[in-house]
Amino acid sequence: MSAGWLRRRFLPKGPLPAPRPPRPHTSPVPYRRPRFLRGSGSCPGTADAPSLPEARPVRCPARSRTLPWNAGYAEIINAEKSEFNEDQAACGKLCIQRCEFGAEEDQEWLTLCAEEFLTGHYWALFDGHGGPAAAILAANTLHSCLRRQLAAIVEGMVATQPPMHLSGRCICPSDPQFVEEKGIKTEDLVIGALENAFQECDEVIGRELEAAGQVGGCTALVAVSLQGKLYVANAGDSRAILVRRDEVRPLSSEFTPETERQRIQQLAFVYPELLAGEFTRLEFPRRLKGDDLGQKVLFRDYHMNGWSYKCVEKSDLKYPLIHGQGRQARLLGTLAVSRGLGDHQLRVLDTNIQLKPFLLSVPQVTVLDMDQLELQEEDVVVMATDGLWDVLSNEQVAQMVRSFLLGTQEDPHRFSELAQMLIHSTQGKNGDPTEEGQVSYDDISVFVIPLYSQGQGSNGH
Amino acid sequence: MSAGWLRRRFLPKGPLPAPRPPRPHTSPVPYRRPRFLRGSGSCPGTADAPSLPEARPVRCPARSRTLPWNAGYAEIINAEKSEFNEDQAACGKLCIQRCEFGAEEDQEWLTLCAEEFLTGHYWALFDGHGGPAAAILAANTLHSCLRRQLAAIVEGMVATQPPMHLSGRCICPSDPQFVEEKGIKTEDLVIGALENAFQECDEVIGRELEAAGQVGGCTALVAVSLQGKLYVANAGDSRAILVRRDEVRPLSSEFTPETERQRIQQLAFVYPELLAGEFTRLEFPRRLKGDDLGQKVLFRDYHMNGWSYKCVEKSDLKYPLIHGQGRQARLLGTLAVSRGLGDHQLRVLDTNIQLKPFLLSVPQVTVLDMDQLELQEEDVVVMATDGLWDVLSNEQVAQMVRSFLLGTQEDPHRFSELAQMLIHSTQGKNGDPTEEGQVSYDDISVFVIPLYSQGQGSNGH
Repeated sequence: MSAGWLRRRFLPKGPLPAPRPPRPHTSPVPYRRPRFLRGSGSCPGTADAPSLPEARPVRCPARSRTLPWNAGYAEIINAEKSEFNEDQAACGKLCIQRCEFGAEEDQEWLTLCAEEFLTGHYWALFDGHGGPAAAILAANTLHSCLRRQLAAIVEGMVATQPPMHLSGRCICPSDPQFVEEKGIKTEDLVIGALENAFQECDEVIGRELEAAGQVGGCTALVAVSLQGKLYVANAGDSRAILVRRDEVRPLSSEFTPETERQRIQQLAFVYPELLAGEFTRLEFPRRLKGDDLGQKVLFRDYHMNGWSYKCVEKSDLKYPLIHGQGRQARLLGTLAVSRGLGDHQLRVLDTNIQLKPFLLSVPQVTVLDMDQLELQEEDVVVMATDGLWDVLSNEQVAQMVRSFLLGTQEDPHRFSELAQMLIHSTQGKNGDPTEEGQVSYDDISVFVIPLYSQGQGSNGH
Repeated sequence: MSAGWLRRRFLPKGPLPAPRPPRPHTSPVPYRRPRFLRGSGSCPGTADAPSLPEARPVRCPARSRTLPWNAGYAEIINAEKSEFNEDQAACGKLCIQRCEFGAEEDQEWLTLCAEEFLTGHYWALFDGHGGPAAAILAANTLHSCLRRQLAAIVEGMVATQPPMHLSGRCICPSDPQFVEEKGIKTEDLVIGALENAFQECDEVIGRELEAAGQVGGCTALVAVSLQGKLYVANAGDSRAILVRRDEVRPLSSEFTPETERQRIQQLAFVYPELLAGEFTRLEFPRRLKGDDLGQKVLFRDYHMNGWSYKCVEKSDLKYPLIHGQGRQARLLGTLAVSRGLGDHQLRVLDTNIQLKPFLLSVPQVTVLDMDQLELQEEDVVVMATDGLWDVLSNEQVAQMVRSFLLGTQEDPHRFSELAQMLIHSTQGKNGDPTEEGQVSYDDISVFVIPLYSQGQGSNGH
């Protein structure tokens, strides 16, 4: 595997260490100490095109759209809340070759291979908790899982319509009709591949952390540009938005104990033993006290979107399965997100109650058809971990993006600088603080992905 | 309970039989043979205001909005696919009095009571299957359950913000703040009451049908006008839409094996014994055959929105948990809906496999804030069972509504005639067939509810 396959801003500049071969199932990954970017620190990223000999636009064989290889700029900040940076990122070119599902593979990936069958691009942000271990593993692993999943279905992806049988052999003459009636499209295969890749990566992380005696979990936000479409897969509370001149469009939803309340409560209803008698699955406006006993108080259960009143019993005084609201909402008093990778070992403090049964590793995938957009040069996707969105709304970010790009049209590094500017604005350091003057104390990572490409002659912005 | 509390078009004209008192928990309800409306038959409805001495607009004490008591027109057709009409309907005025939750009640409801505390209106459509028993029970019962649920929380409903404690006594000084932080509003109490009422009604139907040795289930679509808002609760495949001059807005979503695929598949994953080894929970584009064994075919499992390929094993050849697409999709080869009331005894033909664990009785509730709408005289809500929507799209219905109301401004019976016209258009009998000339062979019921009211002086249009 050649160097440069995956370069992260927190790695030291200069020659990259040789990345591990894609055999994540076999041995634990030792932590690699990241390089910290402190405060306003900004390391010229390896994602910047000019420094990369392989930076060139690549034409996708199946579609006419091209994207510059370096069409993504990351900025990562360590807020020093932990020794190791819990935010991790990965991006790179995505070369998919035909392969048999399940066959042993030792082809390179995310390298510039001359004979790739299908080419795309990959950007990923991972926001770790309980240490950076899961986030580092995810940044090293998820793309391999995705590559494997895509390689297994590449023949279906390049067909006009996915065939019922991957071999292309019709067992039943009306197979194409059945596929059409189900409305199955090529993009459904990529969505399925992303869903499976997240699950596979989660299993890998579980095994590797257990083998290494380590713990932790992370959220995952992934964007994949493939065949003229941008796929955004999200598991956690990071966020991606599309910013255009006249439009701001969310490309992901957050998954937190609040947004997934009903799913989580229902699981506790089906398997009450998961709460070990320590928690109540019911939601109340606040934690109940002894004085509430016998009173009729507001509550809701798993089957309710609305609220009702119930007479408080002793079991209602237990700590709630989901407690707090907004950014303070916690699952089992422990975790602020309800989807992500890892956390196989995570337990409620001083108990044996596991968090994992309540967590999903499956992402929600949205698809942006770039061919339908009539893209302009200033159209970008902004991906960021929750630290940014804690202090800036979608609209505020969109306004900052527009006004920054308007004044920097000739700057070849404008998107990279935009990513830096967005982060710095949350630190109160560039004279452009948020409207409410809010400052973030969280690790923050931002990708700015320009969607517009001027074709093969793209100058790489 | 006075006559006229609930009048359905299928009941004989003339003096109404005395309705049963609201004690649905105690004894089974014998089937009441409905009056059939065949083909173009149109029985002057008891919902028509002029024939009702009690038809008068009623002012809701908590809000200034008024609705004429007869603000809903139903038309029901029996397509003769069964001896008894499987479509049933109910509408009436909703008088909610203060009461203690759980207290014995013998107050009248849906009657014109002079001292009601809170007044609203109620419309409901029930589309039965496996006979009309469940639909008749639901039409006789659901409003009682809802009245009971609303009466129990009426003090919370009339407050600016629902109190944490129903008694109004603050145990904790910051209770109002907790309620506000959770964003709990009055309308959430009504949503909760509707959700609970559907569940309670489902339990009543289960008990009554079992006691009577009868079977069957039904969908339920309910609209409730209360305190200036219209609540639409749906469990099944009926549909309500708002039609205005420049807008068509769906007020409900359909719940079918297809739209609830992931929930149903997940239940089968958690409890595989529910399938008794007879079904596969996986979805394929078509039912697999022996020739497919060993091939890689398209499939998806409960965690997937996208599709992938899998190598066909022998167990994949079983009949799929959900099979067919569109109107033909069936749950366990048996049922076309995934939510509704009843069906406690329903089993897959010649097996002991129960449908009920896969069915939900909880409705999805949407809220229309009529005070925000600047209502016009032609603004209506159209509620109809699936027979109408099988052959007419939302847009087609909206166009028919607009053009009909434009030409009948002086007609006091226009909304009633509109309901008739909509049904007749699906029978190819009024020279205004659907664009594709489609004809429905299903029972069809339609409510047309005009939202506009000219206040107390309303002439009952």
